[in-house]
Amino acid sequence: VHGVLLTGGSAFGLAAADGVMTWLEQHGRGWPVGGGQVVPIVPAAVLFDLGRGGDARARPDAALGREAAAAASASAVPQGCVGAGTGAVAGGLKGGIGSGSTVLSSGAVVGALVAVNSAGSVLDPRTGELWGERHLLDHERLDVRPDPAALRRHLDRIAAMRVALQAARATTLVVLATDLTLDKAQCTALAGQAHDGMARAISPVHTMVDGDTAFALSTRRRPVPDRWAMHELLAAAADVVTRAVVHAVLRAASTTTDAGSWPSYRDELLGGAQA
Amino acid sequence: VHGVLLTGGSAFGLAAADGVMTWLEQHGRGWPVGGGQVVPIVPAAVLFDLGRGGDARARPDAALGREAAAAASASAVPQGCVGAGTGAVAGGLKGGIGSGSTVLSSGAVVGALVAVNSAGSVLDPRTGELWGERHLLDHERLDVRPDPAALRRHLDRIAAMRVALQAARATTLVVLATDLTLDKAQCTALAGQAHDGMARAISPVHTMVDGDTAFALSTRRRPVPDRWAMHELLAAAADVVTRAVVHAVLRAASTTTDAGSWPSYRDELLGGAQA
Repeated sequence: VHGVLLTGGSAFGLAAADGVMTWLEQHGRGWPVGGGQVVPIVPAAVLFDLGRGGDARARPDAALGREAAAAASASAVPQGCVGAGTGAVAGGLKGGIGSGSTVLSSGAVVGALVAVNSAGSVLDPRTGELWGERHLLDHERLDVRPDPAALRRHLDRIAAMRVALQAARATTLVVLATDLTLDKAQCTALAGQAHDGMARAISPVHTMVDGDTAFALSTRRRPVPDRWAMHELLAAAADVVTRAVVHAVLRAASTTTDAGSWPSYRDELLGGAQA
Repeated sequence: VHGVLLTGGSAFGLAAADGVMTWLEQHGRGWPVGGGQVVPIVPAAVLFDLGRGGDARARPDAALGREAAAAASASAVPQGCVGAGTGAVAGGLKGGIGSGSTVLSSGAVVGALVAVNSAGSVLDPRTGELWGERHLLDHERLDVRPDPAALRRHLDRIAAMRVALQAARATTLVVLATDLTLDKAQCTALAGQAHDGMARAISPVHTMVDGDTAFALSTRRRPVPDRWAMHELLAAAADVVTRAVVHAVLRAASTTTDAGSWPSYRDELLGGAQA
């Protein structure tokens, strides 16, 4: 795998994969098939957000894909309403891009990038607390509780949206990566943990209107994990996905377009409190 | 499907399926294949618990399977350390059998039976609260909080068991059933929700030492669900599985055998408080 593309624009947005392919080919990155030719392998997944970014005809195209590939870096990932998260929503609140990572006891790393665009809710209707909040690291934890009156208003608003949510077109996208050397079966197990991580942060999830998709990658810079290291990796992977979903929701900004209004969790439940 | 068998006894316990088959055949229950002959369809799953019930050579056999089939009824399911839950453990605490159900807006029902035998923990190490507790119905909620000192002792004990947990042989078994008429694809989606429900009650789950298995059944007494009814079914299914796991843990009783000691959640974290 030479690149992974997460994008908005509904099925139209997959055009951006062509741009990523082109950039990779131009830079000689890909599977060598002889004669100096390479075939870049670029898994791609798209989420429905037409109009939520402001213009239903604004869709990522090949040029944007090329730009994204050229801009790829090892620096910290921008989170919130960026990239595939621009028009993403999460059960009536604004969704977006989130990331999370952790260092395992061996020094190996597992990290997650998510684009949260779910039909299900990210918060416990009883308390307003984010479902995934208890999985945050100590220093990430919120020091503000949802206001009960705000929670009631939120639940009333969501109940009134029931018809819209029934027709929801949702998909949460996850990329999990580790520097341990995994084979395909191990990557499949890792991708399974992405779904467990989603389940702990979003409810319901994996519904008839969700296309929830996870990719799992191994950069192979560290050895093959032994049985215990693999166990530790899987356990940690689900947790970083849960945290990444929470990060996405906490970094999202309230958005209004011609297609509707999606308040952020902070604005709707926490009175706009910032981290 | 004419019966589902959940049993302990590790792979030996699958012998009990033969007894269920025999009972069903004797009662003419099965897939008719002509000439008055039927073939009972009995999916079966087993969990590892050798010795935890008291005697490593005590394993469910065909006679016990026949007895179980004969005893099957529509009355309330016994929960806790019974049946396949006899020797089940949950991350160093006693596991067992739990059930849960809910009525959907159409009047249809979805119910879950689980045998909790997990490598992962059922409680949040930060608070001692059961991971799945917030999914309980209002009248099921506990009015007692884990004692912080008891939580510390529990976490110390679990940390000391790390080597044993590494070698854990675990499997949580789930049966989900609804009276809606589902096809196989819909049953598969329903079984998927069982895994989401497990993920919300057990962490980590689906690890290299878990064989987590879910069966989904449709009794076909009610119509085929429309799109919204299917959505509602899936969302509710995960929740009843989560609740069933919590019920199993709360109904379990502390157990000591030659193979070891497994305190119940109530005894270890709640000072023995009863519901």
